[in-house]
Amino acid sequence: MIDLEREGEVFVLTMNDGENRWNTTFVRAFAEVLDEVEASEGPAALVTTSATEKFFSNGLDLEWRQTEGEHRGGDRDAFGPEFMALMGRIITLPVPSIAAVNGHAFGAGFMCALCHDIRFQRADRGFMCANEVEIGMVIPNPELALFRHKLPMNTFFETVQLARRWGGPDSLAAGIVQKIEPIETLREAAIARGAELARLGANRKVYGRMKEALYGENAAINQVHGPAYMLRHPEAFH
Amino acid sequence: MIDLEREGEVFVLTMNDGENRWNTTFVRAFAEVLDEVEASEGPAALVTTSATEKFFSNGLDLEWRQTEGEHRGGDRDAFGPEFMALMGRIITLPVPSIAAVNGHAFGAGFMCALCHDIRFQRADRGFMCANEVEIGMVIPNPELALFRHKLPMNTFFETVQLARRWGGPDSLAAGIVQKIEPIETLREAAIARGAELARLGANRKVYGRMKEALYGENAAINQVHGPAYMLRHPEAFH
Amino acid sequence: MIDLEREGEVFVLTMNDGENRWNTTFVRAFAEVLDEVEASEGPAALVTTSATEKFFSNGLDLEWRQTEGEHRGGDRDAFGPEFMALMGRIITLPVPSIAAVNGHAFGAGFMCALCHDIRFQRADRGFMCANEVEIGMVIPNPELALFRHKLPMNTFFETVQLARRWGGPDSLAAGIVQKIEPIETLREAAIARGAELARLGANRKVYGRMKEALYGENAAINQVHGPAYMLRHPEAFH
Repeated sequence: MIDLEREGEVFVLTMNDGENRWNTTFVRAFAEVLDEVEASEGPAALVTTSATEKFFSNGLDLEWRQTEGEHRGGDRDAFGPEFMALMGRIITLPVPSIAAVNGHAFGAGFMCALCHDIRFQRADRGFMCANEVEIGMVIPNPELALFRHKLPMNTFFETVQLARRWGGPDSLAAGIVQKIEPIETLREAAIARGAELARLGANRKVYGRMKEALYGENAAINQVHGPAYMLRHPEAFH
Repeated sequence: MIDLEREGEVFVLTMNDGENRWNTTFVRAFAEVLDEVEASEGPAALVTTSATEKFFSNGLDLEWRQTEGEHRGGDRDAFGPEFMALMGRIITLPVPSIAAVNGHAFGAGFMCALCHDIRFQRADRGFMCANEVEIGMVIPNPELALFRHKLPMNTFFETVQLARRWGGPDSLAAGIVQKIEPIETLREAAIARGAELARLGANRKVYGRMKEALYGENAAINQVHGPAYMLRHPEAFH
Repeated sequence: MIDLEREGEVFVLTMNDGENRWNTTFVRAFAEVLDEVEASEGPAALVTTSATEKFFSNGLDLEWRQTEGEHRGGDRDAFGPEFMALMGRIITLPVPSIAAVNGHAFGAGFMCALCHDIRFQRADRGFMCANEVEIGMVIPNPELALFRHKLPMNTFFETVQLARRWGGPDSLAAGIVQKIEPIETLREAAIARGAELARLGANRKVYGRMKEALYGENAAINQVHGPAYMLRHPEAFH
């Protein structure tokens, strides 16, 4: 379901479950693989991609959510908090992380891609989209905060309010992804970038603490006081 | 003064008062037309434009502000809070909204354009500008918050501190508008985009609640805690 | 060490100490020159540049920090708060300010450039970089707040977390600098821009109060309430 290989210093996590829709079984398999990445030492980076060319991850496992009883998707009640916690874990992963978005990334799949440090997107096909408003749902606040901390304000608004579908070139211009690549070279380009960044992962304490400062409790960047005040009172803002 | 037509599912609001300068009479006429838009049901979008080619809206009605006694501009004391409240209403309008900026949009006129979900600007002429600093005024905090929630940080700064005048192409590159068009096709392009987005307006409850989450009281995106913390504690951030 | 000339209404501050590394002596010399700028009256702008072509400012004076005893760098204990306070002063300088970045701007040198209102960067060579994570340091919160208030969110992340080295063209595309220039014309282009903006500096009270609203204590743009709420309650957000 979730495969893990290592190419030099780069861990390559391949979501390998068809459309890679999120259910509790999928969340737990993903988390287990992260355990292995985090247990490693030395320079390291993570590349996350999909085994299916058309889909990076197509969102929630709706069929599972809408049925009852035994299902390979697992415990339905556990899903919400466990999925959110996994996203919180990815966004603060103490090594550099790259999503190689090789096909559609919708809803939860888009969230997963955004929780990575960098995104490379297939150039010719596939969309990233937060389609909640399109299907009549309000986006939960933690997800809104995720989008708002990763994207320029204008891109953020089109993404969450207008449910815009972002193809590769538009996505690059809007600041959502850092590179677009032909599908043939996407995986290797992401791994090459991971290899360049792996040195930053060697010091996991610093790399992880920085992400906590950006995205964690009482985030440094969300204080009501502006930088001028903070610069004048550095002793109060360790 | 404020005309309203309907083209299919798109309401077209035309400001029709010369330079479209803001006074209490103008604010109330605008608000009445919004009542009509909001009273409608089903798919809908709003396009706001001006009858005067050179001006979308040229700011406050200074002549009215600086005189005393009877004036078609109406009650001077009521203006501040009523204008601000109208802007608060436009920015949370429960249907998609598009400003077709066909000429200059200065001060209050720029605010009005920014309160819309999307902006199309005339390509060849006309500027958008928050000229307060240029004329020796400090921008009020609610207006600052508006600019800061709509624009990328670098664009925000040039806009509010340096009073930069944004022509079409620069405005597009800076993320202020989403499209530029020749004047001949601007209105129809905005209406066509409104028609595409009108489906999102069908569910006004969801569409409006999303905007409240972005721009309202205790806005989801302004919490001091970052997304990692919120993702780990979703129960606390409904 | 820090030279000051005047060309028309533009003050030109030239850092003239080799690599322009920051120590207490350098901070105090810089502050003294700012006293002179602030004591002036009438239209004015500041251009900051370096006498050394290869370096705008190469960061902290590490040799000084890592030794003990007498040193031209001065009092080591005073440095932290005095440097931070100087940055807080530059970011709220009551006249327009332009950094003409003619070479590398690393760490503290990058902070100094970002505290200016506008940045022009040499087009062909030289990087701006916050290299803390690269060298195993967590960026202090006031510095994080500075970067976060000046840059679009995606640029911010690559800058602080990935220690990206920004050359001229990338820097321009990312919204870090407003213009790139050949080294031969950089200084004069910055001075010409300063001359254009000097009129805004004539009203120092307004120009400075705006920056306080953006970057100071309880900054207007960092309130938890969004603009819709603030627009509806302008009386509470003076």
